[in-house]
Amino acid sequence: MQAEATRPGAIEAMARAARVASRTLAQSPTAIRDKALWAAASALRETRTDLLDANAKDLEAFTGTPAFRDRLTLTPERIEAMAAGLEDMADLPDPVGRILADWSRPNGLKIRRVATPVGVLGVIYESRPNVGADAAGLCIKSGNAVILRGGSESFHSARAIHAAMAAGLRAAGLPEEAVQIAPGTDRRYVAEMLAAAGLIDLIIPRGGRSLVERVQNEARVPVLAHAEGLCHTYIHAAADPKMARSIIANAKMRRPGICGATETLLIDAAIAPSLLPLIVEDLKELGCDFRADDRARAIVPDLKPATPQDFATEWLDATLSVATVDGVDSALEHIARYGSGHTEAIITSDETVATRFLNGTDSAVVMWNASTQFCDGGEFGFGAEIGIATGRIHARGPVGLEQLTTFRYEVLGSGQIRP
Amino acid sequence: MQAEATRPGAIEAMARAARVASRTLAQSPTAIRDKALWAAASALRETRTDLLDANAKDLEAFTGTPAFRDRLTLTPERIEAMAAGLEDMADLPDPVGRILADWSRPNGLKIRRVATPVGVLGVIYESRPNVGADAAGLCIKSGNAVILRGGSESFHSARAIHAAMAAGLRAAGLPEEAVQIAPGTDRRYVAEMLAAAGLIDLIIPRGGRSLVERVQNEARVPVLAHAEGLCHTYIHAAADPKMARSIIANAKMRRPGICGATETLLIDAAIAPSLLPLIVEDLKELGCDFRADDRARAIVPDLKPATPQDFATEWLDATLSVATVDGVDSALEHIARYGSGHTEAIITSDETVATRFLNGTDSAVVMWNASTQFCDGGEFGFGAEIGIATGRIHARGPVGLEQLTTFRYEVLGSGQIRP
Repeated sequence: MQAEATRPGAIEAMARAARVASRTLAQSPTAIRDKALWAAASALRETRTDLLDANAKDLEAFTGTPAFRDRLTLTPERIEAMAAGLEDMADLPDPVGRILADWSRPNGLKIRRVATPVGVLGVIYESRPNVGADAAGLCIKSGNAVILRGGSESFHSARAIHAAMAAGLRAAGLPEEAVQIAPGTDRRYVAEMLAAAGLIDLIIPRGGRSLVERVQNEARVPVLAHAEGLCHTYIHAAADPKMARSIIANAKMRRPGICGATETLLIDAAIAPSLLPLIVEDLKELGCDFRADDRARAIVPDLKPATPQDFATEWLDATLSVATVDGVDSALEHIARYGSGHTEAIITSDETVATRFLNGTDSAVVMWNASTQFCDGGEFGFGAEIGIATGRIHARGPVGLEQLTTFRYEVLGSGQIRP
Repeated sequence: MQAEATRPGAIEAMARAARVASRTLAQSPTAIRDKALWAAASALRETRTDLLDANAKDLEAFTGTPAFRDRLTLTPERIEAMAAGLEDMADLPDPVGRILADWSRPNGLKIRRVATPVGVLGVIYESRPNVGADAAGLCIKSGNAVILRGGSESFHSARAIHAAMAAGLRAAGLPEEAVQIAPGTDRRYVAEMLAAAGLIDLIIPRGGRSLVERVQNEARVPVLAHAEGLCHTYIHAAADPKMARSIIANAKMRRPGICGATETLLIDAAIAPSLLPLIVEDLKELGCDFRADDRARAIVPDLKPATPQDFATEWLDATLSVATVDGVDSALEHIARYGSGHTEAIITSDETVATRFLNGTDSAVVMWNASTQFCDGGEFGFGAEIGIATGRIHARGPVGLEQLTTFRYEVLGSGQIRP
C-alpha cells in the first residue's frame, strides 16, 4: 500500500466529514459504541497477518536506533494487547450523558449541565503504532470523531490498524468517518491539522519533546499536552526515613524514562546529613547517577556537581539532580523556578507542612507520601489514558475518558419568559 | 492623566508580575479576597468624583454615535451598581478549593480533584467601563490575576476604575499586580496579550463581533468567547399555541440586541397555518420586522422574503427570520447549517421530540419551553457572569465563577510505590 500523493485540503475535507460523523456518534447509544470497540478488537485479531505484514514493510525500510525499532515493532502479543485494551474500554462507564450538575431556579426553570463529547479530535503520534488503536478507541468510547496522524516510520502499520478500527465502526453501523487517518506521510498534513481551528476541536500530540513543542507552538487549535515532566520529590525534615528511601528509589528508578519519573530530589538540610548518604547508596545500587548542589556534596563528596541548567533538565534517564533546601517554602520556590507543571511530591509526617506544599504549587498533580510514578490514568483508576496534560484549562494531569468530554446546559421550562 | 508612550514588552512584564501575584491570590483565604472586593466597592464610592471627572475627559474627546456615547457614560447610579456588584460577588460561594471528585484506589491511595484558579487571565473589552470592575471582581473572587485592556474611548475611565480595584487589593493586603491595566491605548498591547502564550492562560474578549473575531483569529492564548448568538426557537407541531406566542415574543423582543435574542423562528408546517398569523400580529405590535421563507409567506403574504444569507444573519435588532420546517429533524438540520453554537429552544408538549431536540444539537445551551433570553449567568443562578462562550472546551454557555477555575489532582498516600 503506497502513501498517496499529497493532497492539499485533504485534512479540511476529512475534518468536515468528521464533524458530520461526530454528530451521529454523539447521539449513538452506549451499546453501539461499545459494539464498535468489540468488533474492532476482533478485527485486529482476525487481521493479525495483515498487521504483521504491514509492520514488516515499515521495519524493512527503517534505519534508526534499536530502541526506536523496538517501539515500532508489532508482535502477536502487542496486537493482542491492543485488542484487549479496546475490550477493556468497552467495559468502562460511558462518560457521555453524565449529569454534572442540576438545579432549579426560583422561576421554576430546571437547569442541568450534561456531559457531551468534545466533537472532533486530532491525535498526532510517533513511533508506537498501537497509539492509533488506543486513541481511536478512547475517542469512539467518548463519542468523539478523530483524525489520526502517526509517524512516517509506521505509516503502513498505522493504516492497517486504522482498517481494523473502520471495520469495527462498520460492524456497529457507525459512520467510518468517525475514525480517519491522514492519507500520507507528508508533514504538511500535520500543519493542516494544527491550523484547522473550528474544524478540529482539540489536538493531542503523543511523542517526544520536539513533536509536542512544535504542536504547542504552531497550533491554532486547542492542545492537550505536556512537553516536559520535570517532577520533584521533596523530602521534608519530618519525613519517615524508611518511607523516603523507598519512595525516592521508586520515583526515580522504577522507569526513569517516563514523564512521571522524579528528576530532582529536594532534601531538607536538617535531614540530609543522616538520610542523603543512604539514599545515594540505594540509588547507586540501582545504577543511578547524580548531579548535586554544594551542600549535598559536602555530605556525599563524590557526587558530581550540579549546574543551574541541570535543575532545568528532564533527564529521562538514570540521573538524579539533588538540591538541598531549607523548609517547605524554599522547596516550593525551587519548584516554581524549575518545574514544568507536571507532578510534585512531598514526603513528610507533618500534615501542616504537607497541606502547605499541596496548596503551594500550581502543578497538575501534587502528592503526599507517594511516588511520582503514580501519575498515570490507569493508576488513577481512569481505566484508560490518552495522554498527560500540563496546560491550565480544560484538563490537567492524566487525560481519561471524562476529560474527552465537554458539556452543554439543558434548560427545562414550562413556558417561562424573562422579565 | 496621559496615556503613556507605548512600551514594547510591557505586557510580558505585566504578565510575569501577574503570575507571581496569582500564586499569592490562589492561596489567599476566601475572607481576604472578599475583603478586597468590599474595599474596592468602597473605593469606587469614595472616588466617585474622580471617576466622573475621568469619564468627562473621555466623553469630551468622544465623537461617535449617541448609543456608543451612552455605553461610555458613567453616572452616579452606574458607579453605585458597579460597587454593589462587587459586594454581591463577595457574598457568593468561593469557587476555589471545591472538591470536584474524590476516590480511593485498591493500593490505598486517596485521590482528589480540587478546583484551583486558572491563573492569569486577560480581559479585552470595549465601550462600557464598568466591564473592567465586573471582570476584575470576578477574577479576584476566583483567585485569578488579570490584565485588563479597555477600549481607547474609555481609557481614562478605565484607569480610574482600576485605581479603585488596586486600592481594594491594598486594603486587603493582596498584591496590586493581581489586577493590572494596559498602560496605554496602543493596539499593540492587544496584540501582545494575544501572543502571550504561557504567560496569560486565558483571554476573554467582551465587545462587538469584530473585536471577538480578531481575538479568536489572532490569539495564541486560549480564548473564551462567542462571536455570534444566532439563536433559534423551534415551534413544534405539538406546541401549546399560547405558550409559543408568549415565548417567541419574549425571545425576540424582550431585548433584541443581546446575544441570547432569538434570530430565527423555525415553525412546523403542520402548525404554521393557525399559529403563524397570530405570532406575526403579536410581534408586529411590538415593532418587529420579518424575513420569511416561501411557505411562511404563503400563509402571511405581506412578509418580506428571506434569502439564505438572512438565515445566517444575527440581526441584533427587531427583525425575525422565519423558516417553515417539517418536524424536529429538519429543524435540527437548519440549526446545524446556520447556528452559531449558542442557544436553541424547542416549544412542544411532546417529551420524546423535546428529548430528540435537546440531544440533537451541539450548541452550548438547549432549552425546552423557555425563552432563549434566559441564556445569562444571572438567570442561571451563577450570581455573576464574565461572558458567554461557544467554543468546545473548558467552558460553554454563561461563564461564571466556577468556569474561571481549573483543577489539580491531590494524591494522598502512606508510602505507596508503583510496582
